[in-house]
Amino acid sequence: METFALRKGENRTPEFTKLNPMQKVPVMVDNGFVLTESDAILKYLTNKYNISHNWYPSHLERRARVDEYTAWHHTNIRPHAAKVFWMEVLLPRMTGQPTDPLKLERALADLRDTLDKLENMFLKRQAFLCGDDISLADLLAVCEVMQPLGGGRDILKDRPNLLRWKSRIQSAVGDSFEEAHTVLYRLRDGATSKL
Amino acid sequence: METFALRKGENRTPEFTKLNPMQKVPVMVDNGFVLTESDAILKYLTNKYNISHNWYPSHLERRARVDEYTAWHHTNIRPHAAKVFWMEVLLPRMTGQPTDPLKLERALADLRDTLDKLENMFLKRQAFLCGDDISLADLLAVCEVMQPLGGGRDILKDRPNLLRWKSRIQSAVGDSFEEAHTVLYRLRDGATSKL
Repeated sequence: METFALRKGENRTPEFTKLNPMQKVPVMVDNGFVLTESDAILKYLTNKYNISHNWYPSHLERRARVDEYTAWHHTNIRPHAAKVFWMEVLLPRMTGQPTDPLKLERALADLRDTLDKLENMFLKRQAFLCGDDISLADLLAVCEVMQPLGGGRDILKDRPNLLRWKSRIQSAVGDSFEEAHTVLYRLRDGATSKL
Repeated sequence: METFALRKGENRTPEFTKLNPMQKVPVMVDNGFVLTESDAILKYLTNKYNISHNWYPSHLERRARVDEYTAWHHTNIRPHAAKVFWMEVLLPRMTGQPTDPLKLERALADLRDTLDKLENMFLKRQAFLCGDDISLADLLAVCEVMQPLGGGRDILKDRPNLLRWKSRIQSAVGDSFEEAHTVLYRLRDGATSKL
């Protein structure tokens, strides 16, 4: 695994651009096969290593539920959580200016609306987003939902149902959860110490 | 197949909300199995009827290319084409006000940038978005790219590469192409007659 530091613009180097002309992370290289988009990478890996029983079920209707969530994810959870992270963490660092409070409030309202849907529709009658077992949908979702924490904002704190869902994911994936969020926690601790 | 008229708000009736609490089209009901999101519906149908050789190849890497495009689609072609359609077709009808020219120019610039990527990245060395054969990625993409035509705007007219791609899709799907766009052509003819 190779890492590219976004803060140093390493995603815009010729070396990285050759891998992904979109200059975005993540990029997977598997024996010369180059693939972008975390959604597609997770699906490729579960198909390749045949670990699809829960992460990406081969059962027709259960697989469709995961595809349904991921399609929704890209136009809901993903842009709205990313926008808050962008406004509270990246933009102030890039411009040296504070965040516009009106624009931030609008982004937070969109995010709240999306979290309501996550909670009241996808998680209404089940433990995980696509059923009783954890799937790659939960991994994609929880990573986005964690993002605003980088600016010191815990968007789950008043949402007991979503907190229980997050705990279930943590139990299911073990230490990997904390490992995957190391950089985010460092950002949060920096943000909190400045508050 | 049942149709719901969005212009009459039929997607907000209790009957439709029971099918899709998000109140969005399309919704598929297949022997009681309810599924939303066009991306997920197309993948379900190709998996179910085993017509995946070209629409959604079962070959690991070729399938990953389709998943990669669809993930990109949701955050690029889909929002940018929809925004222009929204601003030029739906919003003026709902508010009775003309479109804000500055906002429209910004939306058109985003759309041009996305079309450049479609042309120079996905279609760079191949006839269709995910290879030499048509796949469900092309269907998803061309439907969005056609949308602004509803407001009389042909966003492909100065793009010979994309026009050739569209022709290849039309040849591959035959009359279904025109059938699928009947309502859109009617909107366009209304828009053009008012210009």
